[in-house]
Amino acid sequence: KNPWQLNTLEYNVIGIFHIVTGLIVFFMQTGFAFLEAGSVRSKNTTNILIKNVVDMLIGAISYWAVGYAFAFGDGNTFIGTKYFLLINLPGPGYSFWWCNYVYAATAASIVSGAVAERIKFTSYLVYSAVITSFIYPIASHWAWDPHGWLMIGVPGASYQDFSGSSLIHGVGGMCALIGALFLGPRLGRFDKNGNPKNLPGHTVPFVALGGFILAFGLITFNVSSYFRVNGSLDAPKIALIGINSILAGSGGAIVALFTKRLHPKLSNHWSLLTCINGLITGIASVCASCNSIYPWAALLIGAIAGLTFMVWSWAILKFRIDDPLDAISVHLNAGIWGMIAQSLFNFKTGLFYRHMDKTSWLQFGWNMLGLLAILTWTSATSGLMFLILKKTGYLRVSEEIEIKGLDVPIHGEPAYPRISYGSGWGIESDV
Amino acid sequence: KNPWQLNTLEYNVIGIFHIVTGLIVFFMQTGFAFLEAGSVRSKNTTNILIKNVVDMLIGAISYWAVGYAFAFGDGNTFIGTKYFLLINLPGPGYSFWWCNYVYAATAASIVSGAVAERIKFTSYLVYSAVITSFIYPIASHWAWDPHGWLMIGVPGASYQDFSGSSLIHGVGGMCALIGALFLGPRLGRFDKNGNPKNLPGHTVPFVALGGFILAFGLITFNVSSYFRVNGSLDAPKIALIGINSILAGSGGAIVALFTKRLHPKLSNHWSLLTCINGLITGIASVCASCNSIYPWAALLIGAIAGLTFMVWSWAILKFRIDDPLDAISVHLNAGIWGMIAQSLFNFKTGLFYRHMDKTSWLQFGWNMLGLLAILTWTSATSGLMFLILKKTGYLRVSEEIEIKGLDVPIHGEPAYPRISYGSGWGIESDV
Amino acid sequence: KNPWQLNTLEYNVIGIFHIVTGLIVFFMQTGFAFLEAGSVRSKNTTNILIKNVVDMLIGAISYWAVGYAFAFGDGNTFIGTKYFLLINLPGPGYSFWWCNYVYAATAASIVSGAVAERIKFTSYLVYSAVITSFIYPIASHWAWDPHGWLMIGVPGASYQDFSGSSLIHGVGGMCALIGALFLGPRLGRFDKNGNPKNLPGHTVPFVALGGFILAFGLITFNVSSYFRVNGSLDAPKIALIGINSILAGSGGAIVALFTKRLHPKLSNHWSLLTCINGLITGIASVCASCNSIYPWAALLIGAIAGLTFMVWSWAILKFRIDDPLDAISVHLNAGIWGMIAQSLFNFKTGLFYRHMDKTSWLQFGWNMLGLLAILTWTSATSGLMFLILKKTGYLRVSEEIEIKGLDVPIHGEPAYPRISYGSGWGIESDV
Repeated sequence: KNPWQLNTLEYNVIGIFHIVTGLIVFFMQTGFAFLEAGSVRSKNTTNILIKNVVDMLIGAISYWAVGYAFAFGDGNTFIGTKYFLLINLPGPGYSFWWCNYVYAATAASIVSGAVAERIKFTSYLVYSAVITSFIYPIASHWAWDPHGWLMIGVPGASYQDFSGSSLIHGVGGMCALIGALFLGPRLGRFDKNGNPKNLPGHTVPFVALGGFILAFGLITFNVSSYFRVNGSLDAPKIALIGINSILAGSGGAIVALFTKRLHPKLSNHWSLLTCINGLITGIASVCASCNSIYPWAALLIGAIAGLTFMVWSWAILKFRIDDPLDAISVHLNAGIWGMIAQSLFNFKTGLFYRHMDKTSWLQFGWNMLGLLAILTWTSATSGLMFLILKKTGYLRVSEEIEIKGLDVPIHGEPAYPRISYGSGWGIESDV
Repeated sequence: KNPWQLNTLEYNVIGIFHIVTGLIVFFMQTGFAFLEAGSVRSKNTTNILIKNVVDMLIGAISYWAVGYAFAFGDGNTFIGTKYFLLINLPGPGYSFWWCNYVYAATAASIVSGAVAERIKFTSYLVYSAVITSFIYPIASHWAWDPHGWLMIGVPGASYQDFSGSSLIHGVGGMCALIGALFLGPRLGRFDKNGNPKNLPGHTVPFVALGGFILAFGLITFNVSSYFRVNGSLDAPKIALIGINSILAGSGGAIVALFTKRLHPKLSNHWSLLTCINGLITGIASVCASCNSIYPWAALLIGAIAGLTFMVWSWAILKFRIDDPLDAISVHLNAGIWGMIAQSLFNFKTGLFYRHMDKTSWLQFGWNMLGLLAILTWTSATSGLMFLILKKTGYLRVSEEIEIKGLDVPIHGEPAYPRISYGSGWGIESDV
Repeated sequence: KNPWQLNTLEYNVIGIFHIVTGLIVFFMQTGFAFLEAGSVRSKNTTNILIKNVVDMLIGAISYWAVGYAFAFGDGNTFIGTKYFLLINLPGPGYSFWWCNYVYAATAASIVSGAVAERIKFTSYLVYSAVITSFIYPIASHWAWDPHGWLMIGVPGASYQDFSGSSLIHGVGGMCALIGALFLGPRLGRFDKNGNPKNLPGHTVPFVALGGFILAFGLITFNVSSYFRVNGSLDAPKIALIGINSILAGSGGAIVALFTKRLHPKLSNHWSLLTCINGLITGIASVCASCNSIYPWAALLIGAIAGLTFMVWSWAILKFRIDDPLDAISVHLNAGIWGMIAQSLFNFKTGLFYRHMDKTSWLQFGWNMLGLLAILTWTSATSGLMFLILKKTGYLRVSEEIEIKGLDVPIHGEPAYPRISYGSGWGIESDV
């Protein structure tokens, strides 16, 4: 019998389930790529696309070589120490690796939005490798490996982050914040008085494409985190995860959409970009809890996430931080609120369900302590990394390249070469 | 034992199958969005994209709150009355909900093409909610719930619409027709003499992207409608559904393509847009029958669907109805022809297989009666809804906004902001 | 009991697994379409898109009518002779058909890149049908049907191409080479002295979209080729296929990326297009062996594939062959190197594992013989086909159409009709 005590067919079924859903989560990289490509100016489009391609490839090598070992290689409460290069990995570990690799790549992907249009390509290679081989694996070891100190917990409480509000979105969002702080804003993003100037992305349809794929991928991400099929309620529980994910996304999107439309100080528009950010924030906010809340709670958690997104987005600008994708307001926000929401709405251990008894406060406290530890770990390690990159001059492109665009000098591939456009049949034929 | 008399693992396998295929059907929303985005003018692109995003989110909330209850909440022959907000839903209902939610969202999505470029955004919010919470659920209760009058049927005949030729495409297509009628054509679509003027969409590649994703999604849609895995022929039957779907799509696409190319009164071109519409019509036409026909019949049904698409598309213009996406000629046509085809080619009950005996005529009659009932229900309820929207002034945007485009005034987000284009390296570097 | 000696549920599970993964492989057609659409000039965009749509539809009809019968219809060592139109096909054949159809469509899809921007549409219809009904099915009969001579092999050796390095990528790539040779280069591709002139594609984001979808699809392709679930290590083996695929892709992409960047005679740029081609070459190179190598070997095979891609790409230009997509350097290269790599690194039969004993040399020889036979068969039959097309004048469009673009005269659908662009709100509102 394998570690999960499943018979051969059960074990194969769950393996196949993880591989197929993991493949769809892998496709989610396309979502990040297009959300970001549509949100930058045309002169930096190839740059952001290649970042997102390389990201998932660097991640595969890093996570194979050391990342998985640090995360799930037994070891001590802080770090795993076996299965480097997957050597001696037991059978069930293979499909488990696949899912966890795509999670690691997701955490790294989140960062690229916040540092877009000004970071050097080499910097990107470095931070992708560091996040997927070190920062994220160790945090996930704490919370998701049976040897990790957050999972071991204290009597009566163990860290609860089902599919990674804090571990994926919190880690990615915190790295994004640190990166944006070290880089500083894009030229022209704030005027002399510190007032922000809008630098719109160049293609709304790409943003929408990215948003659709991310919704598809993030719901599948949550679904893929379920690890058994031998209980009589396993299929309903997996479906519940999907239901909670789409309801949370809906709540987040619709609240953000209406807030933007109706708030007297905002623009009075029905904004697609706000709607998509609300959608992603909503889904990311129930990662921690989607297996252990009722659908109404998912909708409510998502709705509040839509509101907090609007507040974060406003605050980030107030602090004169430039995040071209609002990645911080989506992901770091979702990481924090998701862990709070889990502690409130969990239908077994939540404060609202246990009438705020001692056990539920203990659980709440442990979740908050874990969240704090994960965010501190992430900001310390990524801060050190970005500091080194900055001091060695590898962090930011030159002013000329930033103004004129990265695609031509760095990549030699403008996104839309003018000589390749137009036909010889004249405008009138072009109908 | 659960309602389907499956053991735990069988039940988990089918649950997982529904969740995974349902997720892919969810992704089909991206297909509708891009098919439509490519088919409108650039000035209305953000508008059509946000419609398609909001659609699936409104649908999730509506179908969770009341839609599923009306459809599958036991009740009487007309309407279900349990499981509002999914309260007390038994286990197997969860993955079933997921599949049926994405079906409902599909029915609602079909409409947006026909009303594009002139409907108000608020109108869209309203009709998405009404279709997914009321119109479609009740029709599906009739045909797909054991308590529904069409499924109960008469001795010797029960309504046969396997994966929704009439229930998805018929309902969606009929709402599209009613919406287009109430709205009237876009300004400039017909000249003073009633002759149509071509208003081409702005990006063929987006149409193609949508078409590819819809083919992927619609085949998966049909496959996802199979509900068991305990019989020795279940896997082949599921595969047959896939085979029949792609063959019907191929037949539809190729016949439409060649008709457009070879018909002396048509343009002599190999038209991609016609080909894609033929493809979608073909697959939609075998929804009703893809589990109960032979592959050659699927190819033939699809081929005829390609022809009927050309005829519908011509007739819709003759009646001076403006349907920017040909959604009526694709979906309503497929709903009607699909039910007829099911009654002819079903390898157990079809007229052609039972030598037109009494049973097969009875079955044919019941299918036609059901189709008529569903289309009447849909046109009456959606007609009332669009009438109210029209009378209250919520239906159509102002003439100025229609001419100048919806994206800037309503959404504040032009699809391709000019200031975000171009690099500083000069045209000559742009190679 | 069915042919694979599985019980009912095992058999249904593997059937469902093949259908779902096969559906994702079907989606890969979208990847080819966009990789190619982005790589051509805007005036030929509709043309390349419709080719890719029609391709998968023609393929479905061909493979249903005769292709599957030639491939898997028992018969003799050269060709299968049963199951035309799927008549009398036993149960397990249905999901098997689905997977093999999408493989056939893939082989045909590969060609369109190499012949882009100059081939006639009718030619495309013909070669799609011939490849999917005849050329590919017979080659796959040899290697993948128990009656085929390559699978029967000799005592001690049977052809080893797990998921088609030679059968998919080799066949497709060789047809691409023959097609490009018969067509000759695009006008303006080489100057009078034979020096190549860059004709860049019109939209890098479409290339990236295609690359992402192809990575998703090709990994799933490899995964879908596993045909059992009743052994205790089946799930890990399937996951290993996925792991090996992404590692090989990573190796290929990163080596190609750095070679382009660092090689003193190359352009010093971080090239996205090179990176994507390296990625695809890497994954395609482990098709043959992904089920029977260790992850480090996959990474190495991919890395070498990235290098050989650079060499092929350079050599193809030296021979003044014009391949707009580098399809030959990706796929034919991967077909050849993939079979060599399988013979070297297979952890049971490879030269490096059996210390180059007689058995491993025999296996190596048989693999090389099979590869040679498959490529000879493909070049002979496709050569004859392209020759006939050329002699009958169906191969290449007129010079005027090639220069002015195919979309307007042949398809009547320019990809980006100018009259559909712009809003009435002025440039200043477009922000």
